[in-house]
Amino acid sequence: MTDFNATRRAFHLPAGITYLDGNSLGPMPIGAEQRVAQMMVGEWSEMLITGWNRAGWYHQPRKVGDRVARLIGAGPGQVVMGDTLSIKVFQAVSAARVMRPDRRVILSDSGNFPSDLYVAQGLARAVGAELRVVAPEEVEANITDDLAVLMITEVDYRTGRRHDMKALTRKAHEHGVLTVWDLAHSAGAVDVDLLGADADFAVGCTYKYLNGGPGSPAFIWTNPRLADEAEPILQGWMGHAAPFAFDLEYHPAKGIERMRVGTPPVIAMTGLDAALDVWDGVDMADLRARSIELTEAFIHGVEATSPDLILNTPRDPAQRGSQVSFRHPQGYAIMQALIAEGVIGDFRAPDVLRFGFAPLYNDRDDVSQAVEVLGEILRKSSWDRPEFHQKSAVT
Amino acid sequence: MTDFNATRRAFHLPAGITYLDGNSLGPMPIGAEQRVAQMMVGEWSEMLITGWNRAGWYHQPRKVGDRVARLIGAGPGQVVMGDTLSIKVFQAVSAARVMRPDRRVILSDSGNFPSDLYVAQGLARAVGAELRVVAPEEVEANITDDLAVLMITEVDYRTGRRHDMKALTRKAHEHGVLTVWDLAHSAGAVDVDLLGADADFAVGCTYKYLNGGPGSPAFIWTNPRLADEAEPILQGWMGHAAPFAFDLEYHPAKGIERMRVGTPPVIAMTGLDAALDVWDGVDMADLRARSIELTEAFIHGVEATSPDLILNTPRDPAQRGSQVSFRHPQGYAIMQALIAEGVIGDFRAPDVLRFGFAPLYNDRDDVSQAVEVLGEILRKSSWDRPEFHQKSAVT
Repeated sequence: MTDFNATRRAFHLPAGITYLDGNSLGPMPIGAEQRVAQMMVGEWSEMLITGWNRAGWYHQPRKVGDRVARLIGAGPGQVVMGDTLSIKVFQAVSAARVMRPDRRVILSDSGNFPSDLYVAQGLARAVGAELRVVAPEEVEANITDDLAVLMITEVDYRTGRRHDMKALTRKAHEHGVLTVWDLAHSAGAVDVDLLGADADFAVGCTYKYLNGGPGSPAFIWTNPRLADEAEPILQGWMGHAAPFAFDLEYHPAKGIERMRVGTPPVIAMTGLDAALDVWDGVDMADLRARSIELTEAFIHGVEATSPDLILNTPRDPAQRGSQVSFRHPQGYAIMQALIAEGVIGDFRAPDVLRFGFAPLYNDRDDVSQAVEVLGEILRKSSWDRPEFHQKSAVT
Repeated sequence: MTDFNATRRAFHLPAGITYLDGNSLGPMPIGAEQRVAQMMVGEWSEMLITGWNRAGWYHQPRKVGDRVARLIGAGPGQVVMGDTLSIKVFQAVSAARVMRPDRRVILSDSGNFPSDLYVAQGLARAVGAELRVVAPEEVEANITDDLAVLMITEVDYRTGRRHDMKALTRKAHEHGVLTVWDLAHSAGAVDVDLLGADADFAVGCTYKYLNGGPGSPAFIWTNPRLADEAEPILQGWMGHAAPFAFDLEYHPAKGIERMRVGTPPVIAMTGLDAALDVWDGVDMADLRARSIELTEAFIHGVEATSPDLILNTPRDPAQRGSQVSFRHPQGYAIMQALIAEGVIGDFRAPDVLRFGFAPLYNDRDDVSQAVEVLGEILRKSSWDRPEFHQKSAVT
């Protein structure tokens, strides 16, 4: 049984704050700062260039990848870290597209995170493909024989709706379509089972539920049955079969290593590695159970006390990730008021209040506190004051 | 007059080490560790998601970019940080290629760093272009009207030979060719003048002479006359005109901001920002003068004491960067012996000993020490022992 009191204690959580925005940026694990300092002072400054071998920096992207693999239903040696999620989306979709040279359509949905759509648009324009975007609930019906790639974010960043990875992958394969799964809101949030679903490619970021810090490195997974065949357009020296032979011609490394591109970000990766320590004793079925417990309690609590808020997340726990969102015409103002009261969620235009529940550190007290403060704010009913009508800021 | 004694004191340099490998990985500036710790504890852990605004993380890639801009002859607002050098090469070359739709050839040279060639090969295969690779000394003669892009690393990673950026750019423009300059071995090493040369695109890494730490973020510059027109294939949300509007369609930001892709690596960027403090009082003409002084002294010293080594770097200082390399059939073994004696350079197959001189912290004592130890090692003449015949390791 996972000890979630212990995992909660592993984080620095500022006093007086109820943090429900770990689906945007996870809090700092207490061990992270010390580990990064250790790497900088004990490795970089002392070992200098020899740190690539002596401190193991060179293999860090795969070693850290192995730790992420366990959390997403993948095997060791199947995940590699690096770059940002947008770059990894590009690699996965471009590699999948190359494997379906006679097909030109990439299918995605309007609930996908916009950056994934932008990446696919740029790729499509460059290689003469086409991005087709349908509503989330129409994805399944639109899986047809003309598709090269199905590019889906498993959990919708706005609604928290969770696609059925296994069913969509099965149907995609029936039509000869390769799947790319974006796990930004899944990794560390739900019980992902990539091998069980027989997905083709998966990518994700690590600064949300994995708590790697702002802009920490992304990950990419290729199903082992495709890993030696995948040819991403982005080919850099770290993905070469022999990077230090300095060949003038590119020869891809075997397996997932070919998805490496440039020199890996060691300082950032070290912080992430420390953050992954917190996951060591965590059972993903326990995590999922706790996530459902927290989101259920929040939905019931808010609906009982704040009836003006409209649930924007599937009511069936099986169809959602680890976040809950509500809609309200004055959503931006309400969120500002919540933040002022120490309950931090976030706002997504035009009217969505988002609340992420990270089972690793959020607990029932967080749920009660958020429900209570939200109810108080709603009862004040001052949401037509003009100062609340400003536009969303960066967060 | 730049105070190079002060800049040297700004680094942690391990006792007993003569470090001549800053062209591979710069040493740690003393302030970097503290600044990173401050960011992690004072910003990430306390501000959580609000750090994007309150701590200025969101604009960090451009603010840090401005600091790099001064060192490469570019103006404020023209450089943005992020990703790795290979990714930035891809962006620059792909954007340049889109601007020359009727031309399909990318010209580069065999002295370019292999990763740049790999990136161009991948791009060329995807978009139906062609990478043409000639010898470094044949570049100028091969600038012809069928070229779309000239992709050149200004300073050769192996020989230290420096291309004439101004002359090649002028000739390229006479033939309607756009130029992409890789400044990996130039930024912080020589007096780069991008605006003076009227170059089109430039990219570089920051972990060599800029001392940002292993895998620190890369930079990209677009000449302002092209910046609103450039369309890189890689388009991510941070390069969108309004990232937080979450449009489903990509609309590029104005200017260099469109070269941003995914969420920026704040921890790594903060270390780099601290490393750039050391540059505040540095005049680039002084830097260049000191670089020439050091490399001249090293060449003369080695040639006087180790006649078996063959100079592999142009003798004319105007034609070289801030490194010197020599060839020797037992180069790998000699470098291992040097490292064992505390003189750290590196080896590049098949027979090249490289020595980087970073004017910010290397001094005449480093030169004397390296010359002396190298001379002693060479006089031992034991270079046919089989244990020296192993292949190069990762460094």
